[in-house]
Amino acid sequence: MRYDHLVVATGAHAILPEIPGVDREGIFILKDLKDGIDIKSFIEEKRCSKAIIVGAGFIAMELSEGFTSRGIETSIVYRKDLPLSRWDPELSRFVLKELSANGVSFIPGESPVAVEKGSGSHLRLVTDAGEQEGDIIVFALGVRPNTKMAREAGLATGASGAIRVDFSQQTSREGVYAVGDCCEAYHLISREWVNLPLGDIANKQGRVAGRNIAGFPAAFPGVVGSQSLKVFALEAAATGLDERASERAGYDPASTIVWGGPAARSMNDARKLGLKLVADRKTGRLLGAQAVGQGGAVWRINTLSACLCSGMDLDTIGYLDLAYSPPFGGSWDLIHIGAQVLKKAL
Amino acid sequence: MRYDHLVVATGAHAILPEIPGVDREGIFILKDLKDGIDIKSFIEEKRCSKAIIVGAGFIAMELSEGFTSRGIETSIVYRKDLPLSRWDPELSRFVLKELSANGVSFIPGESPVAVEKGSGSHLRLVTDAGEQEGDIIVFALGVRPNTKMAREAGLATGASGAIRVDFSQQTSREGVYAVGDCCEAYHLISREWVNLPLGDIANKQGRVAGRNIAGFPAAFPGVVGSQSLKVFALEAAATGLDERASERAGYDPASTIVWGGPAARSMNDARKLGLKLVADRKTGRLLGAQAVGQGGAVWRINTLSACLCSGMDLDTIGYLDLAYSPPFGGSWDLIHIGAQVLKKAL
Repeated sequence: MRYDHLVVATGAHAILPEIPGVDREGIFILKDLKDGIDIKSFIEEKRCSKAIIVGAGFIAMELSEGFTSRGIETSIVYRKDLPLSRWDPELSRFVLKELSANGVSFIPGESPVAVEKGSGSHLRLVTDAGEQEGDIIVFALGVRPNTKMAREAGLATGASGAIRVDFSQQTSREGVYAVGDCCEAYHLISREWVNLPLGDIANKQGRVAGRNIAGFPAAFPGVVGSQSLKVFALEAAATGLDERASERAGYDPASTIVWGGPAARSMNDARKLGLKLVADRKTGRLLGAQAVGQGGAVWRINTLSACLCSGMDLDTIGYLDLAYSPPFGGSWDLIHIGAQVLKKAL
Repeated sequence: MRYDHLVVATGAHAILPEIPGVDREGIFILKDLKDGIDIKSFIEEKRCSKAIIVGAGFIAMELSEGFTSRGIETSIVYRKDLPLSRWDPELSRFVLKELSANGVSFIPGESPVAVEKGSGSHLRLVTDAGEQEGDIIVFALGVRPNTKMAREAGLATGASGAIRVDFSQQTSREGVYAVGDCCEAYHLISREWVNLPLGDIANKQGRVAGRNIAGFPAAFPGVVGSQSLKVFALEAAATGLDERASERAGYDPASTIVWGGPAARSMNDARKLGLKLVADRKTGRLLGAQAVGQGGAVWRINTLSACLCSGMDLDTIGYLDLAYSPPFGGSWDLIHIGAQVLKKAL
């Protein structure tokens, strides 16, 4: 087909480990709508009562809540010690407690080696340290960009493995654009081109490419890595860089974690909220933030995302004018407290 | 008393109209803890069943919820047509519906003229257009800064009527500081010194004055006028300037209101959320925002407060990297949609 403009929107594919038995019936990934429908049909048809999820990122968390809400006993098998490895262990432990409180068993430190036929109609997931049986196994190990066609056509890819684009979403070839999970985005804090396969970024990139093709120039300003999820009664959210990523990006990071609640203490609200802030020792600039709480985590991270986007420092954040009201926070919000505590530690 | 440093923290007093009968038993204001305790004792002692609130700001809203939760029939008498006059009529009407749905009657367009003895043990509030009877009347008409002592001592006051301070919280006299409801704060968007009697601002100013007195210099960066409240199941929040205040401050404002929900449409969540944005036609800079919703209003205003503090424009806000997840918003959040709609209208 001839074209004036071409948009590559090939997306990403879910990672499936190359282990024996991974093609057995009852093994799924969850990437697109069809996967969701297939999983739903399978658990209804086979009346599944026991599910195994491999991986512990946001798809695994959401899936564990979904399975549990249908009365399916759920285990999460993960190679690391704690779920949501993007978050600080202190915050991830809070998530782990929430999983346990909702009957999800978390099996840490195990990697899948094979899937075999188990007892009865069960599948058996064999790991490097044990084995688990269940009716259904979902691999939630993240995604990789679909770049085969683009690479074969000679389009450049970046260090992330995804298709290289400029701020107009144009690839290395004029007139050819790439958008979404298959391409890179500029990270405003690490100052690197990264691949962050998230739906909101894909939407924005699609719009920018569309505008440029239609003759209404636009630039995608870039990302700060904001992300959130709900897992049972918890909110988890993060933005920017953690200490390791900050160091890799040439910063000299310091961090703190402060605990409080989503509302003012005067509300006698027992809900908990933990907030981690990461900042640069040299400039005092905020580099990243993470929060997990029984409410109130997402908005604090969104507010701090806006602070990150404008390069705000801890002094300004420590006195940021927020819409104070006891049901939504203290007169000193956890954002202010965190910024002031961290400022002292720089 | 001799002093090295003096801090004026005389606060504000609630406005009580100068009308006949305003000193009768059963008439209250709600400014400090003692007022709250007095109201509580009175309604318990007198077994109040009918309350009248004069005014329709955030104290009136919170009070109407408090009375109603104790089974007290509550009327709000207000000189204007809609409650929460800081918010756009389209958003205030949403608040009015919430009041009605919870049995609070809103009596618009009436100003108090006198309080008389009513039938039985009732008080009678006479207005310029009618009369209301009740066991208790609370005047919630806002506050004025307590500046008498400061003025008598020769400290300068500003156009707002409150004590003039600099960014270190020092008054017109060296060594004398003022903090809280009695003094002014610099508004970053109107670029004027204003009096915003809010607890979070008072806390920040107190800390800044304390630091300067103790020899750890600090400057209060100023305010953008962020404010929030809960009224029954609604959240209301606002920040920055509305059109009128924008014009007064020399801007050329345009505005839009967009409606959606606190969560993504895919969540089948029937809750509503309205967001108003105000921006400057010349620069595209955000000038203010208001939101009212069945959830999700406060965090959007806090995020936009951070945008305001850094002078962000609609182009940047329209592509702001927020922590997207369906329980908390769409992949295009109402913030993005509002910014893009308003951008087109500039």
